[in-house]
Amino acid sequence: MYTIAVKDHFMIAHSLQGEVFGPAQKLHGATYNVTAEFRTERLSQDGIVIDIGLALNALKAVLALLNYKNLDEEEAFRGVNTTTEYLAHYIHGQLAKRVRASFQGTLKITLEESHVAWGSYEGTVT
Amino acid sequence: MYTIAVKDHFMIAHSLQGEVFGPAQKLHGATYNVTAEFRTERLSQDGIVIDIGLALNALKAVLALLNYKNLDEEEAFRGVNTTTEYLAHYIHGQLAKRVRASFQGTLKITLEESHVAWGSYEGTVT
Amino acid sequence: MYTIAVKDHFMIAHSLQGEVFGPAQKLHGATYNVTAEFRTERLSQDGIVIDIGLALNALKAVLALLNYKNLDEEEAFRGVNTTTEYLAHYIHGQLAKRVRASFQGTLKITLEESHVAWGSYEGTVT
Amino acid sequence: MYTIAVKDHFMIAHSLQGEVFGPAQKLHGATYNVTAEFRTERLSQDGIVIDIGLALNALKAVLALLNYKNLDEEEAFRGVNTTTEYLAHYIHGQLAKRVRASFQGTLKITLEESHVAWGSYEGTVT
Amino acid sequence: MYTIAVKDHFMIAHSLQGEVFGPAQKLHGATYNVTAEFRTERLSQDGIVIDIGLALNALKAVLALLNYKNLDEEEAFRGVNTTTEYLAHYIHGQLAKRVRASFQGTLKITLEESHVAWGSYEGTVT
Amino acid sequence: MYTIAVKDHFMIAHSLQGEVFGPAQKLHGATYNVTAEFRTERLSQDGIVIDIGLALNALKAVLALLNYKNLDEEEAFRGVNTTTEYLAHYIHGQLAKRVRASFQGTLKITLEESHVAWGSYEGTVT
Repeated sequence: MYTIAVKDHFMIAHSLQGEVFGPAQKLHGATYNVTAEFRTERLSQDGIVIDIGLALNALKAVLALLNYKNLDEEEAFRGVNTTTEYLAHYIHGQLAKRVRASFQGTLKITLEESHVAWGSYEGTVT
Repeated sequence: MYTIAVKDHFMIAHSLQGEVFGPAQKLHGATYNVTAEFRTERLSQDGIVIDIGLALNALKAVLALLNYKNLDEEEAFRGVNTTTEYLAHYIHGQLAKRVRASFQGTLKITLEESHVAWGSYEGTVT
Repeated sequence: MYTIAVKDHFMIAHSLQGEVFGPAQKLHGATYNVTAEFRTERLSQDGIVIDIGLALNALKAVLALLNYKNLDEEEAFRGVNTTTEYLAHYIHGQLAKRVRASFQGTLKITLEESHVAWGSYEGTVT
Repeated sequence: MYTIAVKDHFMIAHSLQGEVFGPAQKLHGATYNVTAEFRTERLSQDGIVIDIGLALNALKAVLALLNYKNLDEEEAFRGVNTTTEYLAHYIHGQLAKRVRASFQGTLKITLEESHVAWGSYEGTVT
Repeated sequence: MYTIAVKDHFMIAHSLQGEVFGPAQKLHGATYNVTAEFRTERLSQDGIVIDIGLALNALKAVLALLNYKNLDEEEAFRGVNTTTEYLAHYIHGQLAKRVRASFQGTLKITLEESHVAWGSYEGTVT
Repeated sequence: MYTIAVKDHFMIAHSLQGEVFGPAQKLHGATYNVTAEFRTERLSQDGIVIDIGLALNALKAVLALLNYKNLDEEEAFRGVNTTTEYLAHYIHGQLAKRVRASFQGTLKITLEESHVAWGSYEGTVT
């Protein structure tokens, strides 16, 4: 089993609905350091899992959908809680669409929201 | 598959029995940076794996059982080698008890003992 | 010259006025990992620069003034650009007030805003 | 499931063949921070996965095969692309040979090639 | 005293002349994680030390002079030992030229060459 | 101004006398990640601040005086509080003796005792 991972980051504002979120129910923000891990059983003819440049560019294109935005006002997130878990899942779906032509396997998206907490979503790309 | 992870640390003294431990057979100590990863297939109605605040508090409560202690003199560890692996397993058991009411899934405990070595234990919480 | 440093973090929403800020002129947010460094020429009678527990608590109290807030709506920041530099200076002033009784020397506040950028302010506490 | 991990690093020069590698087709170099993770279901009688000292020494012996070399001129790599994925697989094979007498289980080798990209190979040691 | 810092990285091949360099006398390579710190006594009217975007772009332009190259074959480095110290000084000079129009103060360049060693050069930009 | 830094770590047990230390008055332990920074105005004829190999070996020799020990029982520390600040100063003195023949300048020793606290001592080597 081989893995290649690339990293980038984005910064957003948002608020979370539900008592469980305590002070995070108020509008606040976060920097998320994002890691995208691509996993496959076999390498391509070039001896790679995925072209790192392609992976970095695809990730940057996905994060541009979120970066410097107030998620509470984005149509795409109307009525949903943009938790770390949700955002990891959203980025997974968007990135899967963009890399599908050159990658099939498992994709794991991890979002570090601070030095004491992070979250991730993992699923297949087919 | 979703994961949420939280981090904290504790500091202890101990010694290890067995030739394999070399100089660590003498009483010495360590700072352990601890990561607890909670993994589930589905999110709760609030859109989360586990409440991060609850997870951080439960982890802090468990680490208070160990922090600033000489493990060689603790009743709970009489006759056992408090290796990194053992301590990861011990913290797993204690944390599982405390979060069971609000989390079922896989729990992985990782202890970084220095910048060149770490250990972990992973098991289910039911 | 001795230094003791402690770390914590906070999460806020804000926007920045001025063309130089590009997309950061829109309401967005950030997680800031904060390090407070205390520097003195001599140690106290206990052999320390400052009590680490006291330093961590004072820093936590200061960060509670900012954490989970939209800085654009805070009275304290009306008419100012809450850049990383400004926030480092603000935290310096607030922390200096709280530790002055037990610390005189140089205090440096560093805010990591992402894995590729950070800022700091350094000044004396008398 | 228990894991023990150890870290070291090595520095090499090499070039990569194939258009997909862009500027990396020219002779350049890299520092790789390497993590070796050993995973088993059960601990030994000493309460460990593997002796950390033995693991660090075995890893150091394997990295000495690569460290401070121009891989383009090494017989062992004639005709292959020494990608991060390939090197992770190569180190896995070499390390497996050296630890087999005292470890059976899963071995994962991760190579960090920069602060924005890393790769790994995972397989069993029997 | 205010500081703003930005980070990037580059990968090169080179060899070092002199017995003191031991195995590094052979052609090998390295990834350098680079931090550029800009320090001034006063903020600009926008409340900043330097525009982070401008700083990141200027650093990227300087690192492009080095990235993916064999320094032993570059005209610019003929007859010099491209040690970490030398490269930090070289990057300082190149970056100073590019930011001089919008920054006066102290500039410190740090190159992490592995997880156990780093070097830096610090000087004024006027 | 040039700097070269090297890193290593050590693990000890100790206790601290004085109410200010709270629970750390009990015998406990710590892993300290240590960084030694060497700073000079001019490079040697080889183009370096100090030979990194020599620096790493000298640091390792100094840390061997502390590693895997209970400092409460060491003659060298009788009657002193082995705080992070004190240990940084002690390591500075021991390392200065060992590198004096090949280095004059400023030496800074930093001890990370956890992911939220570190301390350092800085002084000249003549």
